[in-house]
Amino acid sequence: MSFQLLKTDTETNARLGVLTTAHGEVTTPIFMPVGTQGTVKTLTPQNLHNAGAEIILGNTYHLYLRPSREVLENAGGLHPFMQWDKPILTDSGGFQVFSLKELTKMYSYGVEFRSHIDGSKHLFTPESVVDIQRSIGSDIMMVLDECPPNPSSYEYVKKSIALTTSWAKISREHFLSTTGYYGFEQLQFGIGQGSIYPSLRKESIKQLCEIGFDGYAIGGLAVGETTAEMYDILNVVVPEYPQDKPRYLMGVGTPANILRAIQKGVDMFDCVMPTRNARNGTLFTTTGKVNIRNVKYRLNLDPIDPGLGNTYANNFSLSYLRHLFISGETLALHLATLQNISFYMWLVRTAKEKIRNGTFRQWSNNFIETYYPEKNV
Amino acid sequence: MSFQLLKTDTETNARLGVLTTAHGEVTTPIFMPVGTQGTVKTLTPQNLHNAGAEIILGNTYHLYLRPSREVLENAGGLHPFMQWDKPILTDSGGFQVFSLKELTKMYSYGVEFRSHIDGSKHLFTPESVVDIQRSIGSDIMMVLDECPPNPSSYEYVKKSIALTTSWAKISREHFLSTTGYYGFEQLQFGIGQGSIYPSLRKESIKQLCEIGFDGYAIGGLAVGETTAEMYDILNVVVPEYPQDKPRYLMGVGTPANILRAIQKGVDMFDCVMPTRNARNGTLFTTTGKVNIRNVKYRLNLDPIDPGLGNTYANNFSLSYLRHLFISGETLALHLATLQNISFYMWLVRTAKEKIRNGTFRQWSNNFIETYYPEKNV
Repeated sequence: MSFQLLKTDTETNARLGVLTTAHGEVTTPIFMPVGTQGTVKTLTPQNLHNAGAEIILGNTYHLYLRPSREVLENAGGLHPFMQWDKPILTDSGGFQVFSLKELTKMYSYGVEFRSHIDGSKHLFTPESVVDIQRSIGSDIMMVLDECPPNPSSYEYVKKSIALTTSWAKISREHFLSTTGYYGFEQLQFGIGQGSIYPSLRKESIKQLCEIGFDGYAIGGLAVGETTAEMYDILNVVVPEYPQDKPRYLMGVGTPANILRAIQKGVDMFDCVMPTRNARNGTLFTTTGKVNIRNVKYRLNLDPIDPGLGNTYANNFSLSYLRHLFISGETLALHLATLQNISFYMWLVRTAKEKIRNGTFRQWSNNFIETYYPEKNV
Repeated sequence: MSFQLLKTDTETNARLGVLTTAHGEVTTPIFMPVGTQGTVKTLTPQNLHNAGAEIILGNTYHLYLRPSREVLENAGGLHPFMQWDKPILTDSGGFQVFSLKELTKMYSYGVEFRSHIDGSKHLFTPESVVDIQRSIGSDIMMVLDECPPNPSSYEYVKKSIALTTSWAKISREHFLSTTGYYGFEQLQFGIGQGSIYPSLRKESIKQLCEIGFDGYAIGGLAVGETTAEMYDILNVVVPEYPQDKPRYLMGVGTPANILRAIQKGVDMFDCVMPTRNARNGTLFTTTGKVNIRNVKYRLNLDPIDPGLGNTYANNFSLSYLRHLFISGETLALHLATLQNISFYMWLVRTAKEKIRNGTFRQWSNNFIETYYPEKNV
């Protein structure tokens, strides 16, 4: 058994768990920094470790195109290739492929697409996506799914989840009839879809549970629906997910989104927000968002985020980090990314502490209202 | 006394010395990584320290425009601002200002220029350049000099060195009649000019020595003359420089340039080459230059430069670093810069060892011929 539920909060549906992988244990709830192309942008593995990262995400679509299965297999997989020895989860590439829109062609057996790099034609099938993730050697692989665009009609989504379920079945069979390339065991998660339709969401996860996976993701959210809609769906859907398996909300989200979803019983998260926004000069801190380019930080010698204590980024002042951004220095992107990943890891670490000592509801509500207030939710 | 000569090589004019500054000792010959805008591009101070850097260079022109004297003084100088606690040398801004060409206007009392950032008008005088370097709080400041373009006529250069000497005199007087802003002692170096004219070069350094500085730079080389011309000038000029003071060859150069100049008795170097070329994918290694984008490294799992031993960059393979460059990842710039700075520091560290044990001539000639051969020299 790869997941152990340690505690369920009495005031919320928050859970405390341990996910065991071939590259070590991950305590949940957890946030996974996104390392699209075999690097969490601007950070070394040592930086990630120091920032508190326990597991990172890689993108199957990107890694398949570049560096390629051949290069990854030559290196013995993504772990030695990028020198990250803790767990890695890889998505299935479905989300990226369907984002290409006019460059894709759907078939019952898979999806044909053109590379965003050179226009070359490729086919992803449920089986090939398992094989690619064997080449990557991720600890947790995701199945190929169809991500319906938002908005989509009930009828479209109904057909879509039937396809997603049939692909999930093929994926699981292929996964169970093959073995990893590098001598360690990989896990496989299914992905529930259903857009904003509660009955289809329930149907999708029911079908996935019948197939049986090591964990279950909530896919197709944070794709344009309102935050209120997303929370409504989570309220309906999360209770339908198995108690004894990890629940992974894909591509979410803001600090408030993550705490709310933890309250609703979600265990795992990934999002480009902390890394992408860092590169735009938006810092996430223990006292709210900071636009570091603002002139008010020009002479501010305070550390970047005193609430995080002794992080490497806290060696530097807001004044210095602002100077680096204004001057277009690469070190700005590095320090801001360090800050944001350190903050996101602090956020889930603190959530775990609060769940453990029974104060999670009060702390998380108060933290959101004080520092990351949500509108119309 | 800020400089102690420990040994002069018997087979070459190479010297071993110790330069004492308010932020610690520097053993010479030394290479100073260039940190133009208060950061050696892509590296943290910790990275620099780990790469073996003992002293770095800052650019007065850039720091004056951005972040500005006010921001630097507010932080207590460049050391605390950028969190680098070892020595810093700052150039005078003269080289940058004269590179602006049509944006400058020369007067006997200084040089007027327009900012490359916003076109605003500024004046550098020998005195103001001392004051700016007081605000920066560098351990070693350089005097304002005129850098004649290459080629320049004998007549032009003759007038130019007269101006440079008169500015040097004003600079020294202003330096000696003021004190540092942050409670530690700064040093001041003069800059000899004279283009490719031996007699003017000799005249310039003679006049500077009469004023008296803590060290002396060889300016106006590596500005378009051939390598053979540069070496010829060094052969003539270096012996004219005082024995008991450090000799700094500004803006030089390739690994071969540095070793040849050390053979000729130069003690200090700075150059953007290792950092700038790193960002273009050119690595300097203990076995020669590497164009990391070359397809021949696609499946090469060797560390980046085994000759450097246990550096952080050596955790990664050529295959991985190539992938990062091909994919346009910022981490590529970081790791390549780490490699190149580690190599340049290894180069001068090894030169010191070889001078110490009396094998410098043989080692340096052999190293250049084997790994960094020079043409037409």
